Amino acid sequence: MSRWPDNRLTDLLGIAHPIVQAPMKGTTTPALAAAVSNAGGLGSLGCAYLPPEDLAALLGEMRRRTNRPFNLNFFAHGPVAPDPEALDRARARLAPFYAEKNLDPPPERLEPAPEAFAPSHLDALLADPPAVVSFHFGLPAHDAVPRLREAGCRILCSATTVAEARALEAEGCNAIIAQGWEAGGHRGAFAVGADDEGSGLFALVPQIVDAVSVPVIAAGGIADGRGIAAAFALGAAGVQLGTAFIRCPESAASEAHRAAVAAASDTSTRLTRAHSGRPARSHRTRYIDAMAAETRDLPHFPLMYPLSVPLQATGDPDFQFSLYGQAGALARAEPAADLMARLVEEAGAALARLGTGRAPQTRPGAEEPAPAS
Amino acid sequence: MSRWPDNRLTDLLGIAHPIVQAPMKGTTTPALAAAVSNAGGLGSLGCAYLPPEDLAALLGEMRRRTNRPFNLNFFAHGPVAPDPEALDRARARLAPFYAEKNLDPPPERLEPAPEAFAPSHLDALLADPPAVVSFHFGLPAHDAVPRLREAGCRILCSATTVAEARALEAEGCNAIIAQGWEAGGHRGAFAVGADDEGSGLFALVPQIVDAVSVPVIAAGGIADGRGIAAAFALGAAGVQLGTAFIRCPESAASEAHRAAVAAASDTSTRLTRAHSGRPARSHRTRYIDAMAAETRDLPHFPLMYPLSVPLQATGDPDFQFSLYGQAGALARAEPAADLMARLVEEAGAALARLGTGRAPQTRPGAEEPAPAS
Repeated sequence: MSRWPDNRLTDLLGIAHPIVQAPMKGTTTPALAAAVSNAGGLGSLGCAYLPPEDLAALLGEMRRRTNRPFNLNFFAHGPVAPDPEALDRARARLAPFYAEKNLDPPPERLEPAPEAFAPSHLDALLADPPAVVSFHFGLPAHDAVPRLREAGCRILCSATTVAEARALEAEGCNAIIAQGWEAGGHRGAFAVGADDEGSGLFALVPQIVDAVSVPVIAAGGIADGRGIAAAFALGAAGVQLGTAFIRCPESAASEAHRAAVAAASDTSTRLTRAHSGRPARSHRTRYIDAMAAETRDLPHFPLMYPLSVPLQATGDPDFQFSLYGQAGALARAEPAADLMARLVEEAGAALARLGTGRAPQTRPGAEEPAPAS
Repeated sequence: MSRWPDNRLTDLLGIAHPIVQAPMKGTTTPALAAAVSNAGGLGSLGCAYLPPEDLAALLGEMRRRTNRPFNLNFFAHGPVAPDPEALDRARARLAPFYAEKNLDPPPERLEPAPEAFAPSHLDALLADPPAVVSFHFGLPAHDAVPRLREAGCRILCSATTVAEARALEAEGCNAIIAQGWEAGGHRGAFAVGADDEGSGLFALVPQIVDAVSVPVIAAGGIADGRGIAAAFALGAAGVQLGTAFIRCPESAASEAHRAAVAAASDTSTRLTRAHSGRPARSHRTRYIDAMAAETRDLPHFPLMYPLSVPLQATGDPDFQFSLYGQAGALARAEPAADLMARLVEEAGAALARLGTGRAPQTRPGAEEPAPAS
């Protein structure tokens, strides 16, 4: 049985170790998620925009690979209508890049984006409910959460502020993923203004822990056992790691993506709307830096993709969208099972080391420090 | 004697508790710094722009108030020449605010700013060396560090990146303050581009710990014992807290400043150059939000002050520069000695709780988790 300092999350999810592998859309695979679940963590699959009719086969594959709990993740934004003026502005700003790469001009009109989590997705999940379903960009507007809970699923969702965490708890989430400024990929913000800054995880976790009664999962900037121990110190009951898993052989990351993480430093990423329309932390490129001056006037997520993907498809490193977080330099290339074993061992060592610290019985000042000079 | 999980910083500085009270310029007082030092932490005084001839009296006052180590802090930017074009742009952008408050137009020319830490400051410190001297915005260009070390002072300085931390260690700093994105007040960055983002503390601390051999002090977003325990988990040997001390009766904070921190939430601050010319985390105001779209073209620090101070002097809340960090909501109004006692007690309790965690002897996956559904 688990003997972590806080076992609310492991008990809630039925897992041995309170480590959630982040459901990075496009980077996760059934092999990766199953390896994490089989190692005692919670493996996750990014299922955003997956056709609902493909969900049954995916669930079947996961159940063949593991008999442990796993997590399917979905985006939860509503339908998105094109904004012709924003498109015109974006076309003008992208024109020099299109010219440089000899591409046909950017599209003159965009199709509306469908709702990300449709009733047909819900039906497919209810037909064969996974242990855990998680959402990003808020929760679906229809009655998905109560129906999934009724079917036995645990529901997780990302919050980037205290107010978002409170709203998610009120809507029935079983645990809250506190996503810090450090996190790679898309910020899950759903109730903050376009010009809001993000909270760093150090400040965010204790404030969310104080505001909700469900377990809190710390996410962003954690890539080794030290970060896991630190998350517990702040009151989290678990962690979600994404960047740490990108270089695993089981991931679907491209060679360019793996190389970007392998070369990561503390300053090699930035938040950008220039690829998708929503703020996402990505490897810095010439394109991202050039667009940084003003990205608030771009078409909304996901309608920026049709404009940025042709540039990315050239293969030119200047236009890649390689998502990872501020702790990329701590990630290694190793099989997921080895990574899980290392994380658990490192976290255990860090926790044991911290346990040797003082639990002062005396008021400070009662003892004499040695003079410094 | 100390029994913290890591005693390198307490041993280095000759203090009982590895808690540095941040030297917030304009907010710290001898009473505050002495109370912290007398409680076993390291009290600090923000001495930027203090006339060198006043240092002797200040050192005398501190020595009357405490016989424990304390820290004097200085800015370390070189001389700053006015940039007439940046001034013209700033005058144009500020004109509507000046008109709204019926102020005379902004100044038409600015005086150069002197070097922040002059040879005369150094001479005054060498005449009566404090136990600790810390710097912000890098280190002084002349031979201050070796001469202060020779006189017995320990030298601290803020780093916002791994590269800055390495440079500070190479220049002789005895410990590095890792300043995260969460931190209130001015970012101490001295070697990064104007458009660089900051690293969250969760990602920054372990990367700096891995890069240098001197003790690392975690700063930014820490305002209670949970944060202190988390900093140790990440490998820090101590913490620096500023925001937590603003509401202490011993601080020099204005009523407006205290009220801003008392009303703080996780989203109530933002980084801005609009007051000083350098990025500083402050309570959000109408002025700061209005200037947020583009602040990179403003006059350099500290030459923006002569333009923003007349607006601030009106007392209008829309133009106040109330510096605090992203964990302001965790700060309380209590005497510094009580705050120190609480921090030590909370940290001890958090460390003891973490120590009950597992130090796994087995490979993960060797045990059977409970099924979730």
